[in-house]
Amino acid sequence: MHVSIISVGNELLRGEVLDTNSHWLSQQLLELGLAVRNRWTVGDRRDDVATALRAALSERPELILVVGGLGPTVDDLTRDGIAEALGTRLVLDEPALEALRARFAGFGVEMPAQNRRQVEFPEGAEVLGNPWGTAPSFVVRSGEGRVVALPGVPRETKKIFERILAPRIREWIPGLTAPLRLVARTFGLGESHLEERVKDLIEKLPAGVSWSSLPRERGNCDLVLTCWGGGQATQDRCHELYVAIQDRLGRHIFSTDPHEELDELVHRLMLESGYTLALAESCTGGLVSARLVAHAGCSRYLERAVVTYSNRSKIEELGVLAETLDRHGAVSEAVALEMARGVRRRAGTDIGASVTGIAGPDGATPEKPVGLVYWAVVTPNSEVVLTRIIPGDREQIRSRSADAVLDALRRALLGPA
Amino acid sequence: MHVSIISVGNELLRGEVLDTNSHWLSQQLLELGLAVRNRWTVGDRRDDVATALRAALSERPELILVVGGLGPTVDDLTRDGIAEALGTRLVLDEPALEALRARFAGFGVEMPAQNRRQVEFPEGAEVLGNPWGTAPSFVVRSGEGRVVALPGVPRETKKIFERILAPRIREWIPGLTAPLRLVARTFGLGESHLEERVKDLIEKLPAGVSWSSLPRERGNCDLVLTCWGGGQATQDRCHELYVAIQDRLGRHIFSTDPHEELDELVHRLMLESGYTLALAESCTGGLVSARLVAHAGCSRYLERAVVTYSNRSKIEELGVLAETLDRHGAVSEAVALEMARGVRRRAGTDIGASVTGIAGPDGATPEKPVGLVYWAVVTPNSEVVLTRIIPGDREQIRSRSADAVLDALRRALLGPA
Repeated sequence: MHVSIISVGNELLRGEVLDTNSHWLSQQLLELGLAVRNRWTVGDRRDDVATALRAALSERPELILVVGGLGPTVDDLTRDGIAEALGTRLVLDEPALEALRARFAGFGVEMPAQNRRQVEFPEGAEVLGNPWGTAPSFVVRSGEGRVVALPGVPRETKKIFERILAPRIREWIPGLTAPLRLVARTFGLGESHLEERVKDLIEKLPAGVSWSSLPRERGNCDLVLTCWGGGQATQDRCHELYVAIQDRLGRHIFSTDPHEELDELVHRLMLESGYTLALAESCTGGLVSARLVAHAGCSRYLERAVVTYSNRSKIEELGVLAETLDRHGAVSEAVALEMARGVRRRAGTDIGASVTGIAGPDGATPEKPVGLVYWAVVTPNSEVVLTRIIPGDREQIRSRSADAVLDALRRALLGPA
Repeated sequence: MHVSIISVGNELLRGEVLDTNSHWLSQQLLELGLAVRNRWTVGDRRDDVATALRAALSERPELILVVGGLGPTVDDLTRDGIAEALGTRLVLDEPALEALRARFAGFGVEMPAQNRRQVEFPEGAEVLGNPWGTAPSFVVRSGEGRVVALPGVPRETKKIFERILAPRIREWIPGLTAPLRLVARTFGLGESHLEERVKDLIEKLPAGVSWSSLPRERGNCDLVLTCWGGGQATQDRCHELYVAIQDRLGRHIFSTDPHEELDELVHRLMLESGYTLALAESCTGGLVSARLVAHAGCSRYLERAVVTYSNRSKIEELGVLAETLDRHGAVSEAVALEMARGVRRRAGTDIGASVTGIAGPDGATPEKPVGLVYWAVVTPNSEVVLTRIIPGDREQIRSRSADAVLDALRRALLGPA
């Protein structure tokens, strides 16, 4: 049982737009229990769409998703390409035309003539619709399989998949079961160090179970056990291994939910704790704050954040001592601690957290290399200052520093292990 | 003349890793003057690699890039797949083996036996090498075209392309010329409003010139004129049109450099102005600051930023009047202005900028919907407060609000149009 995806668009092949649709659809299909066997990307040419579709059909997939090229302009040739590959012609669908006219009327405008093209479908197609845009999705049977066309605007692709297509796929292919997928999201250890700690466990993987470690852009690393089918015994063994891996890695694992990011978790822990928080950021420039403010409800704990980029603002806003700055420099353990204590005191919050570092490319000294970062978390019960030399460019150093602060907050909120 | 890209990796098809390599390579090839005609993504299966490569070869491209699957493990089957499609066998390359052994010796370890696989290449291949990792890149001729294998670790893919492959491509295909590509990056007008303003101009495009408008995730929209080949007359006409488009859109265009983001431009303008800046952010939570701190040298103008999420911190940190908050609410023109004035006064900077809004999903009232945002910029010569209802979810509203502030800074720094 397998699936193919064909993405259509000159803007993809020119590298003007990153194809996030096929990535997202691959995830969604896997969660339904369908593996994507291959993907194609072709431009806005009828023949290229048809060639890719014929090639995909030759492997007899259950399902082919063709994404993009359903717009109203002469460049939008997916409908034509599908009809060509299936050896059929395009037929105007009257109910779809009426729905499209009504959509335009709802905005108080008449439907432009060129939009008629959007309601011409390959003969025999079933219209799946699109309440979120002008390009209706549709499905055509081909042998035992089905070809589904989806618009390429990511918001519409997602809505149609979630609300319309996924339920239909479950009808079309009964008995789908998602693979067992056990995830441990880690922070604080590199990929090779992680593997070293669990090497003996993953050497004993039962047949049908695969292991992958996926380093993420934000510096964390996901460990994934995947079990396709297999009997109850295999699944039980998989769960056992998972528990053993969790025991080994302890607090380095921040979540077992593959979709939960570190900031989301800290947001949840902050809300649960009832504590309030104030932040003092230097090299991260507001990124720690911005990652928490991404979540609705942060106003219940985040009292304020200050980006104290200059020495003067560290003194004025946080009460850092000029003497400490002189003696240790702005990037130091002592200053990180005074920043966290200071912002906590000034804001009158339960927790104060801070970060100061050299994001580069300039600012390094023989003693203080680019990537040297100090961060501190002060709570009613504890004071912690941490340091590391974070590898990468300015963007990576800043991003990983921000997550280092979030991770220290997480560990402080969880209390002693 | 055309190019195909084949990406190899189960992690891509499972949606575990977003395929940024083929996107980046497409851009780079276009800049060399080579258009990508199609792309394939296949899993770590020898047969699937071979099938995709045969299909790609059947269209007689100048060049096929096969990316990923060059690692040392049994899952890494790109070498085998290429040999299968070309009807040849893998042969150990002694000099490459020596280089790999030396690489390991440099780290003080012996080369593991399994890494031998990485220096077995299809017969007749020329080794292109890889100074940045263990998987050497290589090229094999096939008829008039060439098949190049590249490792899939993005950092290595990029380095090899830039330092080794691009110069070779110029040798292999002499006389390559990049298309003329004229870009206008705009902010502040929606795609359809932009098109409306220049509709009559783009209706007169000469043959061989294409027009695209590319709405970006961050809410801006790029307008692109592309001219492939064409004589001097066509190129001149293209430049004329470009100038006419710039005249029409004026200040809505923030850059004509396709790689320059709004924050980068504001960073540059701030440095040029010699002014200092302080920020007061509410709904953006530090995002305006973080976008400026992304650029080295921001310490020369960014004195501080404060995220005043609570009313109390707006009063304490910025001197916003309790009365103003009571009468107008935290999300109001009056509060935005007092925030900008307040942070400028407190920090003693030349410019103060602020933003306050309802990012949602909660917090709306009948008068103040989700997405309502006010932002202000106060300079020695001017005070501006702006407002808009920004569409989208919490993340989009915050991101676009941050860019709205940056755009207001840009306009203030440029002075009256």
